[in-house]
Amino acid sequence: MPRYALAVEYDGSEFLGWQSQTHGPTLQQTLERALSAIAVAPITVVCAGRTDSGVHATGQIVHFDSPVARAPRAWMLGSNSFLPKAMAVRWAGQVDADFHARYSALSREYLYRLLNRQARPALLQRTLSWERAPLDLQAMQQAAACLVGEHDFSSFRTIACQARSPRRRLDFLRIERVAEVLEFRVQANAFLHHMVRNLVGSLIMVGRGERSVAWLADVLAMRDRAEAGPTAPPNGLLFLGPRYAARWGLPAEFAADPALEAWLPLHLREPHFQ
Amino acid sequence: MPRYALAVEYDGSEFLGWQSQTHGPTLQQTLERALSAIAVAPITVVCAGRTDSGVHATGQIVHFDSPVARAPRAWMLGSNSFLPKAMAVRWAGQVDADFHARYSALSREYLYRLLNRQARPALLQRTLSWERAPLDLQAMQQAAACLVGEHDFSSFRTIACQARSPRRRLDFLRIERVAEVLEFRVQANAFLHHMVRNLVGSLIMVGRGERSVAWLADVLAMRDRAEAGPTAPPNGLLFLGPRYAARWGLPAEFAADPALEAWLPLHLREPHFQ
Repeated sequence: MPRYALAVEYDGSEFLGWQSQTHGPTLQQTLERALSAIAVAPITVVCAGRTDSGVHATGQIVHFDSPVARAPRAWMLGSNSFLPKAMAVRWAGQVDADFHARYSALSREYLYRLLNRQARPALLQRTLSWERAPLDLQAMQQAAACLVGEHDFSSFRTIACQARSPRRRLDFLRIERVAEVLEFRVQANAFLHHMVRNLVGSLIMVGRGERSVAWLADVLAMRDRAEAGPTAPPNGLLFLGPRYAARWGLPAEFAADPALEAWLPLHLREPHFQ
Repeated sequence: MPRYALAVEYDGSEFLGWQSQTHGPTLQQTLERALSAIAVAPITVVCAGRTDSGVHATGQIVHFDSPVARAPRAWMLGSNSFLPKAMAVRWAGQVDADFHARYSALSREYLYRLLNRQARPALLQRTLSWERAPLDLQAMQQAAACLVGEHDFSSFRTIACQARSPRRRLDFLRIERVAEVLEFRVQANAFLHHMVRNLVGSLIMVGRGERSVAWLADVLAMRDRAEAGPTAPPNGLLFLGPRYAARWGLPAEFAADPALEAWLPLHLREPHFQ
């Protein structure tokens, strides 16, 4: 069976997350229904990062095996005619049978956008969260520096998180002010459940001056969720996408820095075990 | 009666334009209702630029006279508690009785955002319009150059336009590609009805290769709406706001380059006719 990969964009405010336990439309169900209609056979997809309810994506990557071969263009155009308006396929391609949207990913990148002004947002309400109090950008940047590198991120992990290990390699967490918006860009090999939103929620406490710059490193060291700040709202969060080794042939925006491959567990580094 | 000015942001997709002839909620009615509730007296507002149905704003400026004095902060916070979610007051201030949101404006700036890729938009559908065909950015930039300066823009004016003169001074029209989005930023002393959308619609024809670079200058010279391209959809259009002489004391983002004052009609240049 040929294996295909898709790059998917969605407005998460209209779905109950990628794979929800509760009732309602999930992103996975919606996408599988469209692909199954094109294949005229049941299709199951695997995604690079399961986003929560209300979280958006511009570059979610999925793979699936299809009992019927279709041109990549047919998967893309077909999907975009079957999918609801809040979801679109931006790219489709055939990939090697060893490619795995989740396990082949060397890193994931998220963007969190926070409107920081007195007046609540009127435009872009779906994709901006809001903080009324003035935030000290420099203090937040200084506090975030301790997070870079490989750490046990238990303090920023929701109790419901099912990951085996709380250790993650955080490549960067950059905070910039763009007019009235604070943009947090963060990349890691992978994220624990609610990790980005818990990091942002804690950094906001530093920005407000309620906690010191040094506090965040203490929280990280304590490995205790109760020590960190609240979970920031989902609507400001956008999954920019995963990155893969160039040999998989995904579009350039999903190609990882080759140096990242050194971080991969050995059994994933060479897909054919040659 | 004290005169106040407000900077207003709105998501135009939830309103029938600033001042509609048809039935339904207009931006002006909505704002006047909120201000009248705060003043406990009827309030009428005058805006810098009447936007069409579906067009957004981040910096619409209005002025109004109030029979009761209120602190600027009270106008802002009060408005934001009375207004619906799709409209917010970003700034409020008391202004000179000679300040006029429309007549004192030295220029207006608009941003048009066009998603240019095969797949339709899923995220940001409200604020992006979409063109599937690849567009030649350089050809569009070259064609736009002829528009800068003072011209008769009759070719880009809707028949319903009520302006006395079709002459406008266009300060710049810059087109940039930001990832998959083409951004058109355009400033003029004022715009004719549908002028920005008609310019964008015509530039898209050049970008598609359906018209030559030289065609746009011919259209401009013909002063005939029938020669220009179609009106681009409203949802990609965003009114960034007007600019005023610094002496009016509006926030810095609404302060005009002092050189622009030379373009003002003489009777408006000195507000007190001294």
